[in-house]
Amino acid sequence: MLNFDSQGLVPAVIVDDTTGDVLLVAFMNQEAYQLTRQTGQTHFFSRSRNKIWHKGEQSGNVQEVRDIFINCEENSLMIRVQQHGEAACHEGYHSCYYRRILPDESFEVVAERIFDPADVYETE
Amino acid sequence: MLNFDSQGLVPAVIVDDTTGDVLLVAFMNQEAYQLTRQTGQTHFFSRSRNKIWHKGEQSGNVQEVRDIFINCEENSLMIRVQQHGEAACHEGYHSCYYRRILPDESFEVVAERIFDPADVYETE
Repeated sequence: MLNFDSQGLVPAVIVDDTTGDVLLVAFMNQEAYQLTRQTGQTHFFSRSRNKIWHKGEQSGNVQEVRDIFINCEENSLMIRVQQHGEAACHEGYHSCYYRRILPDESFEVVAERIFDPADVYETE
Repeated sequence: MLNFDSQGLVPAVIVDDTTGDVLLVAFMNQEAYQLTRQTGQTHFFSRSRNKIWHKGEQSGNVQEVRDIFINCEENSLMIRVQQHGEAACHEGYHSCYYRRILPDESFEVVAERIFDPADVYETE
């Protein structure tokens, strides 16, 4: 079964089942994996906040699981989802990988913004 | 720039530039990232072997970098590559994600094998 690493985590690549685009990579612990299986919506473990995170909980842009694949070494997952609200990225882009790294190590934005984060996330 | 984690690593999703398939996820440290940039072929850091790993070194199935993308939080990479030899997986499949997880947590192979690992990797 799933081989969690020394920190109890596996990386999960999330792919848009409609477009085939890579939306994001995040980590799951055992609980996040079980919640994802039970609810049919992606849950992750936030290493910076040290807690479970239900993707889209605040923005409404949840991800419905279509299929889950496991790699050869059984230490990572690839999950195909139906992305609600089009944008998976909290910066308002379809994918979190909206910037290309150029030869001089600067970044070039290669995608169009779908929403303005200021309209979606309330600041406290 | 790239925010390496407490272990000095970032996950990198490798995508076949021709087919758009997710081939694998592996980790890079600063050195692996620099080698990837300098040589134009993917290099990773193996957590189990604790050393740099030039993908395809033994099998010849190297990955030529086409484009590198960085995520919103600047703590992961998505790299589009030209995969030599078709199979990215050391088990002989195009992608490492050749198995789907079924509702009862068993695995179903969903891809065809391109090579037999016994023919490619010499055992010592």
